[in-house]
Amino acid sequence: MSSLSERKARLIVHGDQPYNAEPPLGRLRASYRTSAENFYVRSHGDLPDLDLETWRIAIFGGAGVRQELSLHDLQTRFPEAVVTATMQCAGNRRADMRAVAPVSGDPWDAGAIATAAWTGVRLGDILREAGVADGADLHVAFESHDMVEGRPYGASIPLRKAMAPETLLAYAMNGEPLLPEHGYPVRAVVPGFAGVRSPKWLRRLTVQDHPSDNPIQAEDYKLFPPGVTAETADPTKGHTIDTMPLNAAICDPERGATLKAGRNRVRGYAVSGDRAIVRVDVSGNGGRSWTQADLEHEQDAPFAWTFWSVELYLAPGEHELAVRAWDMAGQTQPALPTDTWNHKGYLCTCWHRVRISVIDQNMSSLIPASNGPGGP
Amino acid sequence: MSSLSERKARLIVHGDQPYNAEPPLGRLRASYRTSAENFYVRSHGDLPDLDLETWRIAIFGGAGVRQELSLHDLQTRFPEAVVTATMQCAGNRRADMRAVAPVSGDPWDAGAIATAAWTGVRLGDILREAGVADGADLHVAFESHDMVEGRPYGASIPLRKAMAPETLLAYAMNGEPLLPEHGYPVRAVVPGFAGVRSPKWLRRLTVQDHPSDNPIQAEDYKLFPPGVTAETADPTKGHTIDTMPLNAAICDPERGATLKAGRNRVRGYAVSGDRAIVRVDVSGNGGRSWTQADLEHEQDAPFAWTFWSVELYLAPGEHELAVRAWDMAGQTQPALPTDTWNHKGYLCTCWHRVRISVIDQNMSSLIPASNGPGGP
Repeated sequence: MSSLSERKARLIVHGDQPYNAEPPLGRLRASYRTSAENFYVRSHGDLPDLDLETWRIAIFGGAGVRQELSLHDLQTRFPEAVVTATMQCAGNRRADMRAVAPVSGDPWDAGAIATAAWTGVRLGDILREAGVADGADLHVAFESHDMVEGRPYGASIPLRKAMAPETLLAYAMNGEPLLPEHGYPVRAVVPGFAGVRSPKWLRRLTVQDHPSDNPIQAEDYKLFPPGVTAETADPTKGHTIDTMPLNAAICDPERGATLKAGRNRVRGYAVSGDRAIVRVDVSGNGGRSWTQADLEHEQDAPFAWTFWSVELYLAPGEHELAVRAWDMAGQTQPALPTDTWNHKGYLCTCWHRVRISVIDQNMSSLIPASNGPGGP
Repeated sequence: MSSLSERKARLIVHGDQPYNAEPPLGRLRASYRTSAENFYVRSHGDLPDLDLETWRIAIFGGAGVRQELSLHDLQTRFPEAVVTATMQCAGNRRADMRAVAPVSGDPWDAGAIATAAWTGVRLGDILREAGVADGADLHVAFESHDMVEGRPYGASIPLRKAMAPETLLAYAMNGEPLLPEHGYPVRAVVPGFAGVRSPKWLRRLTVQDHPSDNPIQAEDYKLFPPGVTAETADPTKGHTIDTMPLNAAICDPERGATLKAGRNRVRGYAVSGDRAIVRVDVSGNGGRSWTQADLEHEQDAPFAWTFWSVELYLAPGEHELAVRAWDMAGQTQPALPTDTWNHKGYLCTCWHRVRISVIDQNMSSLIPASNGPGGP
C-alpha cells in the first residue's frame, strides 16, 4: 500500500493542516468508482491514527440505552450491506464562485466529489436493535476522533435519514479497509447528503431530540442569501445543507487544454442528492446551443453519480464548453456563478464552463501529450 | 351554486373547446386554499355530464381481478382521507417562454396552479384490497369519460406513486362535491405530479406492466431539449413529466400595475413537486439584489405550495420585480426563459419577472382602484 505522502503527491493539495485535496478531473472521470487514492480528502482537524484493537463506537440510543461496539461486533451482529454512493463536499466547485467575488474556504475545483462501493452495516439496523423507533422526530448526532479547534468533530442527521436503507456505518471502500485519511476504521456514509454529514473516525453516536450542537453542525455548512456576510450571518437563519442539489461538471478536456479540430469527445459527471439525472446538455459555444450527452449510470445505485459523454465537432479557435444537467423533476441548473453566490461559497451549481483551444489538424504536433483522456 | 358560464366569466379563458381558463393572479393569491370557482381548468376534450346514480369506476387489478365501485362503495368500503395539495399544469407560465420564441399550447400566465383540500379515498387502499402488491415495477393507467380526438382521455402513474399515502381518488374539493369542470364525480389527485397525471371524470383504472399507451401519456407531456422541433421530436426519447420542478411567481402586484412610492408589499407563491421550499428571494431591480420573503406554509401538507410576502421600498420609476425560490436541497431556479425553453413550452421555471410603475405619493390619486391586493 502506498504511504499517505505518496498519495498526497498525486493530488491537488489545498491545505496540509487540515489536509484537503482533490484529484485532477481527467483522472477522476477515468472510472465510475473512484479508487481510495483518487478520492478527495476533506478534513477539519488532524487525521487520527486509531488502533483497531481498542477502537469502539459508543451508541447512546433511545431510553438511555448505551452500548459499545467493536468492529468485530458490527461485522458479526449485523448483516453486511454494500452501497455504491457518491460523496460530495458542500464546497465542491467553490473556485467558480470565488471567481465572481471573494468567499471563505478552500478553492475546490470540481473534484471534491467521488464515488465508491461502501461496505458496512446499515445504521438503521443498529438503531433498531438499540430500541429506537422509526418515524420519531429525532436526530442522530455523530462524534469523531478528529479534533477541530480543541473539540471533537461532530455533526448530525435527521433520524429519518439515519433509518434509510442507504445510510451506513462503513468499514470498507471498494472492498478494502478505509485508508487513514478516509476515516479508518469506521465512518458514516450518508448518501445524497453533503460530505460533512458523513463523519470519519467515529467514536460515538447519540439519538437526541435536537441537531448536534457542535459548531460544524450549528454554525458552519449553512446556506445564506447573497446579501449576508460573515459579520451579519445568523447561523440560526441559514439553511442547513443536507441533501445536495443538482450539479454537473466537464472533466475531460480540462481547462486550458488544446485539442485537434474535428470530432472530440467531452466527458464528465452529473449528480443530484436524491433525484435521478434524466438529461445532460453540453455546449461547444458557451450555451448558445446544446447537444445531448450519452448517460452511464450504475444499476441499483440511486445515490451514485451519472457519467456522461458526448462527441462535439470543434472548429479551430477558442471555445467555451458548458454543461447543464436535468433531474427527474425537469429541473435544471442556473447559468451563472452569481445566481447562487454566497459568502461561504457553498453549493456552486451553475453551468460548468471550460475554456479550451482548438487548433488545425496539421498543427496537432504542438499539442502536449498530457491532454489525453484520463490524464497521467 | 353559480353556473359554469358565470364561473367562466370570472376567469381568463384561453379556450372554450376544450375549456381552459385561469384566474387573475391577485385573486389566486388571496387565499391559501383556492375556491373551486378560482381553480384553473385544464381540459383536453369535452366536459362530461355524469350521473351519480349510474357512475361506476372499473378496477382492473393484479391477477385479472375486476371490480366496479360506485361512489357509495368508495365512501363506505374505504377510510376517508383528506389531503391538502397543489395541482399544477405542466404548461403553467408558458406565456413567459413564448415571449422568447414560439411554442405550442395555450399561453398560460402563472395561474395554471391552485391548491385545495381534497377529500377521497387513498388509491393505495383500493389497490391493496384488489390484491396489488407494493413495490412491483408496475403502472396504474387511468381512463376517463372525456373524449380527446375520438378516444377517451388516458394517462398513467408508476405504481409506487399510486401506492403513496398522498394519492387519492377524490370526490370533494374543499369539502364540496367536485364541480363538473373539475371532474365530477371522481377524479384522481396525484400530489406533486403534473396535473395531466390526475385525470378527471374517471371511469376505469388498470394495473399493468407498462405506462398508458394513450397519446396523452405516450406522446404529449414530454420534455425535449431546445433543439428539438415538432417535426423532429421522438416521443420515446422525451422525458415524461411527472414530478414538477421548483417554481415561483409574483401574484401581487400584477404586471403593469402602478404603485405608490415607498414601502409596498409583494406577494406570491413558490412550489416544488416533492421538496420543501426553504427560501424565497425577491428583487425590486431585476435580480441585481435580493430581499428574503416571509414564508407561509400549511402544516402537514408537504405537497402544497408555499405562500410568501415581502415589503420592498420602491422609489418612483419603472421597476422589474423578480422572484426565485430555493428548495431543501439548496437548488434554485434558472434566471432566463431561454434556459429552459422547449418547443412545447413545458416547465417554465425561470425567475418570474413583473414590470411595474411606481409614482410619487402626491400623484397617487392617479392609480386606478383595481390595483388593490387580491383584485376585485
